[in-house]
Amino acid sequence: MEITRKNFKESLEVIETAINECSFLAFDGEFTGLNHAGMSHAAIFDTPEERYYKVVQGASDFLLNQFGFCTFSYDGTTKTYTAKPFNFYVFPRPFSRAAPDVRFTCQSSSLDFLMSQGFDFNKWISEGVSYLRPVDEASLKDQIIKKHEVLSSPAFISPSGGSQPPGINKSPVEIPPEQKDFVDDICKRVEKFLESGEHESYSLPPCNGFQRKLTYQSLEAKFGSDIHLQGKTNDKKERYIVVTKIKDSDDVKRIEENKQAQDLAEVDDAVGFTKVIKMISQSGKLIVGHNMLLDVAHTIHQFLYPLPQDYEEFKSMCHCVFPRMIDTKLMSNTQPFKDRVENSGLSYLHTLTQMPPFVKPEVVLPEEWDNKYKTEMLHEAGYDAYITGQCFIALSNYLGQCQSPPTERIPPGSPLLQPFLNKIFMMRSLDIPYMDLCAPDLNPARDHVFHITFPKEWKNSDISQLFAQFGNVHIGWIDDVSAYVALNSKSVANYVLKTLCKKGSVYRIRSYNDHKNPKYDEGTINPYKYVRPKSNDNGDVHHDMTDEKKGVKREHSVEPEDNDSIEVGSAKKAKTLNVDAPEFTPTSTPEKEEELQWPDNINSSEKKVGEESTKSKLFTEPDDW
Amino acid sequence: MEITRKNFKESLEVIETAINECSFLAFDGEFTGLNHAGMSHAAIFDTPEERYYKVVQGASDFLLNQFGFCTFSYDGTTKTYTAKPFNFYVFPRPFSRAAPDVRFTCQSSSLDFLMSQGFDFNKWISEGVSYLRPVDEASLKDQIIKKHEVLSSPAFISPSGGSQPPGINKSPVEIPPEQKDFVDDICKRVEKFLESGEHESYSLPPCNGFQRKLTYQSLEAKFGSDIHLQGKTNDKKERYIVVTKIKDSDDVKRIEENKQAQDLAEVDDAVGFTKVIKMISQSGKLIVGHNMLLDVAHTIHQFLYPLPQDYEEFKSMCHCVFPRMIDTKLMSNTQPFKDRVENSGLSYLHTLTQMPPFVKPEVVLPEEWDNKYKTEMLHEAGYDAYITGQCFIALSNYLGQCQSPPTERIPPGSPLLQPFLNKIFMMRSLDIPYMDLCAPDLNPARDHVFHITFPKEWKNSDISQLFAQFGNVHIGWIDDVSAYVALNSKSVANYVLKTLCKKGSVYRIRSYNDHKNPKYDEGTINPYKYVRPKSNDNGDVHHDMTDEKKGVKREHSVEPEDNDSIEVGSAKKAKTLNVDAPEFTPTSTPEKEEELQWPDNINSSEKKVGEESTKSKLFTEPDDW
Repeated sequence: MEITRKNFKESLEVIETAINECSFLAFDGEFTGLNHAGMSHAAIFDTPEERYYKVVQGASDFLLNQFGFCTFSYDGTTKTYTAKPFNFYVFPRPFSRAAPDVRFTCQSSSLDFLMSQGFDFNKWISEGVSYLRPVDEASLKDQIIKKHEVLSSPAFISPSGGSQPPGINKSPVEIPPEQKDFVDDICKRVEKFLESGEHESYSLPPCNGFQRKLTYQSLEAKFGSDIHLQGKTNDKKERYIVVTKIKDSDDVKRIEENKQAQDLAEVDDAVGFTKVIKMISQSGKLIVGHNMLLDVAHTIHQFLYPLPQDYEEFKSMCHCVFPRMIDTKLMSNTQPFKDRVENSGLSYLHTLTQMPPFVKPEVVLPEEWDNKYKTEMLHEAGYDAYITGQCFIALSNYLGQCQSPPTERIPPGSPLLQPFLNKIFMMRSLDIPYMDLCAPDLNPARDHVFHITFPKEWKNSDISQLFAQFGNVHIGWIDDVSAYVALNSKSVANYVLKTLCKKGSVYRIRSYNDHKNPKYDEGTINPYKYVRPKSNDNGDVHHDMTDEKKGVKREHSVEPEDNDSIEVGSAKKAKTLNVDAPEFTPTSTPEKEEELQWPDNINSSEKKVGEESTKSKLFTEPDDW
Repeated sequence: MEITRKNFKESLEVIETAINECSFLAFDGEFTGLNHAGMSHAAIFDTPEERYYKVVQGASDFLLNQFGFCTFSYDGTTKTYTAKPFNFYVFPRPFSRAAPDVRFTCQSSSLDFLMSQGFDFNKWISEGVSYLRPVDEASLKDQIIKKHEVLSSPAFISPSGGSQPPGINKSPVEIPPEQKDFVDDICKRVEKFLESGEHESYSLPPCNGFQRKLTYQSLEAKFGSDIHLQGKTNDKKERYIVVTKIKDSDDVKRIEENKQAQDLAEVDDAVGFTKVIKMISQSGKLIVGHNMLLDVAHTIHQFLYPLPQDYEEFKSMCHCVFPRMIDTKLMSNTQPFKDRVENSGLSYLHTLTQMPPFVKPEVVLPEEWDNKYKTEMLHEAGYDAYITGQCFIALSNYLGQCQSPPTERIPPGSPLLQPFLNKIFMMRSLDIPYMDLCAPDLNPARDHVFHITFPKEWKNSDISQLFAQFGNVHIGWIDDVSAYVALNSKSVANYVLKTLCKKGSVYRIRSYNDHKNPKYDEGTINPYKYVRPKSNDNGDVHHDMTDEKKGVKREHSVEPEDNDSIEVGSAKKAKTLNVDAPEFTPTSTPEKEEELQWPDNINSSEKKVGEESTKSKLFTEPDDW
C-alpha cells in the first residue's frame, strides 16, 4: 500500500491495526545519499564506535526519503503468513513559516540509482508525508500557545481597538511615491467590501512583503477596529492578506481562537510520519531489517531524536526505541547459513531462500491490497521490507529444520533466534560482524594488524612488497600516507616489527594497538622523503616505472586461517550458531555494497583511483569489493 | 525549447547559431536551495566582499538545477525581436566510475517551491544534461590516456598473453566453498561460448564485486590469452562481465584502443552543458539577468571554475567569463525607473513594462519553436530568461524616450546603458546597490551605523528604545547578542556614542568603523548580565512582561533622508541616471526575496522567531521584507 500525504490520515487506522496484530515486521529505508567523498578503505578495521561516528555523519547530512515496512501475521490453521506491505514517501515539507526548513545532502549517484529503480522524485516532493521530531512539535505548539496568550492579554485587546503596543516607539513607514497608487487601490477595495456587506471576508490580491507591510499599516490607520487582517499563502506560494469584518472585540477573540486551533491542528498534521514510527516503537514487536544499521540510525535521527555523540548512548537509545531487532544480513553471514549463502545481497538471498534446502514460506497479501509486489520492485522500500520478511521466515524455519527432531516453524520469539537478537550487521568489517546493542561489542585481537605511514607515492604494491616475507596481507588505506595492514597468517605477527622497524626507513610502522593507544610521543622520523622500498633497488628506470604504474591497490586474501570460534549468546537448542569473527567471512558483503551504492572509491583513497592493479586495468574493471 | 540529454547533442548547432546571431541574451537559473539556516539580517549592511563570501558558500553547497537562456535578435525592417528561449535541466550524472560523484545540498522549501511551479524532478535526474568543469575533463582524459599507455607498454602485453604484472606478489584469492558452484558455472559457460564459435563476445550474468573478482581470476587462469574480459553496467545498474574471443595480441590491442576511444568519447559527452556556457562566454554578447548575482556565481562555479576565495579575483573572473552584463533588477531600482517601478519582482516588472509609459516590445518566436511560453511559466528558467529579455528591451527603449529628441530603440550597445554595465544588483543592501565588476565598489559613509552587543534576552524593542532619542533606526541582527543599528537621521550620529557609551551598561556600543577596524582590544564589559535598559524602570511586572513579549523585531523606516546623490558612470546622454545609494531605495527588494524564496527568518535571528511585533502578531503575519 503506497502512503502519501493524500491518503496518510485515512490510512492511519489500517496501519495501526496491521502493526498491532502482526507477529513481526520488516522494514527498509531509501536515502538521498550514503557517504561523503573520500571515505577511507580503512573501514574494514573500524571498531563499532568508529563506524558509528560515520553513521552519525551520514544521518545528519543525508535524508531518508522512502520508508517501507511490512507486517507479517501468522495463521496457524492455514500455516500461512499474511503480509501487509506499506511504502511511504517522506519529505520534510516546511508546512508553516515557523517550521524547520530542512537542509540535506544528496549524492548524485544515489539519486541516479533510485531513479533507475523507479523512485518517483516528483511524488516524493509533492506528496511525501511530512514528519516532526517530538522536540520540534513541542516547541512549535509552545510558540503558538504563547503567541495566543499575548494576543488575548487585557493590555493588548482594548475596546478602542488600539493594537499599537504601548510604550514602544514605532512610527509608521512613510509610503514611497511609487507605492501611493498601490495603497490607494487597496484602501478603495476594502472600503467597497465593507460597504457592500455581502461577504464576511475579502482576499486582497497577492503582493510583496513591503507592500503587505504598507497594507497592514494603511488599513489599520484607516479602518482600525472595523477589520481584522490575516496573511495567507496561495497555491502558487504567493502571500496575500484576508480582510474580515469585525463587530466587537469578541469577534477578534473568536477569530484569534480559531486561528490558534487551526495552527495547532496544522502542527499535528505535520507530525505525520513520526506517528507511524512511534506506533512501531511502542508495539514492541520484533523488527527485522537487512543490513539495517543505516535504516535504524536514520529512522531514529530523522523522526525521533538526534543521534547522540556517545556510541554507548546510541546503543541504549536504539534498544529503547526498537527493543527487539534482527538483521537478516547478519543471519545469512553466520553459520549454518554462511556455507549456503554465496551472496547475501537481499535480492539473491530472497531467491535462494525460496529454494531447497530452504522452504519457501507461504505468504499472502490481504484481498484489499494492491498486487504490485507480484512483480519484483527491488529498492522500493516497501518491496524490500516485504522480501526481507520472507527471507527472515525462511531462515528462521531453516533453523527448525536443523533441529533434532526437525521443527517446521520457528516463530519470531523462538530461543533459536536469540543469538541474532539486537545485533546489527557491520558491513565490510574484517573481524567484527555486528554491533551488539545489549552487550559489550566484540573486541577481537588485532596483534596481526599494523599501522604504517609512508610517502604519498606509495601504492598497494609497495606495501605488499614490504610485507612479502610475511605472506598475503589485507591493506586498509586510511589516506594517502597511511594504512592499516593485516597479516593473513597471524602466526608470524611477532616478527613484523622486529624485521621492519628500521632506523632511517621512509616508512614508519607500529602495532595497531600502539597506534590506537599511543603510550608516548615517539621521536619523529621524516616519512616524506621518498625512497621506493624495494623496486628502488632495481636500477632499471623503465621497469621501475612499469612497476609503479602497476601498483596493486586492492589485494585481498580472505580465507579464514584460524578456527577458534567464539560461541556468542545462549543458543539453547541451536547446534551450530557461531556468530563470530572466525566463522564470519566478509566475502559476501560486496553485493550489499552495490545495493547500497557505496562508491567504488571507498576501496582506495581517492588519489589512487586510476592506478588499480594491472590486472584490473587489463580487464578494465577495478576490483570493487 | 526544452533541452535534456535526449536532444542535447542534436540541438547544439541550433544553440550555437542562436548565440552567434543574437543582439543580446538573457539568462536565469533555478537552484536546489538558496541559503543556510540562520543567515543573519545584518545582510543589509554587507559590504560587497562580505556578500560575496555568502555567495561562495551557497554556490559550493547548492546546485543550479535548471539553466534558461533566451537569445534576442533584432530585425530593423520589421522592428521586431526574434526570441529563442532554451530551457536546460542540468544534472551531474556520474557517467563513469572515475567521474565526480557530486554531493550537494537541498533546501526543502526550495524543492517544495520549485515543485509548485512545475519543476519536473524526475526529468531533472533522469534526463538532465551532464556537465564537467574543464579541469575535471582534463584530468579524466589524462587518466584514460595514461591507463592506455600502461596497457600498451611492451612489458605488459606479451605474446604469451601474460597479464600478470612482473615482480608483484599477487597470489590468487582462494575460492570460498560457497562460491565453488558459481565459479564452476561461469567456467562452463565460457567454455561453451568458445566451443560454439557463433559470436565474438558473450555477456556473463550480473554478479557482485567479489564474484567478479573470482570470475576474472578463474577465467584468466583457465583461458589465459584466449579471451579478453571487460566490465560493464546494465540499465538496472548491475555490473557484469563481457567475454571476447582473442586470436592474437593485436586483437587485445585493438580492443583496448577501441575502449580508449569509447572512454574519451564518453568524457566528451559528459562535458555536456559546459559546452553551452563556453559558447555564451566566448560569444562576448551582452548577458542580461534579473537579480543575477547568484545566477552568475553558480554558473561560473558549477560549469567552469571553482569560485576563488578572493573577492577581487572573483570580479576579474566574472568579467573575463562574461565581459558584458546588465542586471534589470538594478535598472528598475535606479532612476528614471525607480519612481515608476513599485515592485521590481520580475513578474511584476514584466507586466509593468508592457504598459505605458513603457512601450511593449515586439517579440516573436521562430515558427519551429514550441509555443508553450504563450502562457505564463514563471520560475521555469527559460521562461524567466525570456521575460527578463523583454523587460530589458522595454527599459532600454524607455531611456530613449527620455532623450531629447526621443529615440525609439536603444540597442544593447548604446552608451545610455553604460551606467548599468557590469554592475550586479546587491539584494537587500541598504546603501550599496550593486557590485561593480570593473571598478572599485561603492564605499558609502556609515558614520550613522553602530555595532551593539547586548544580553541575549534583548529584542527589537529594547534596541529601538535605547536609540529612541535619535529617531527611527534600522536594525540588522547579526546574532542573538549583537546587531548593527543605523540611524535614519544622519545628523545626530555624532551624539550617539557620547550619549549611550556608559560605564556599567549591559550593552556595548561602538561605531561601525571601529567595529570593522578595531584599533585595540578594549577592556571587556560583561555584556551578558541581563538588565532591561529602559522598561527596566517600570517596576510593573505585568507591563514589563507584556512589553517584553511585544518586542518589535523588524522595525524599519526606509525613507531616504539625504539627497546628496552620487553620479556613477559616464551617462553621456542620460539625464537622470543616478545609480547610487541615496537615490536607491531598498523598498522594492522584497518581491525578489519571495521569488528567490529567501526564508522569512533571514529577517531576524532564528531565536527571535515567534516574537514579532504585536502588530504582526495581531495580523498573524510577520513583516517579512
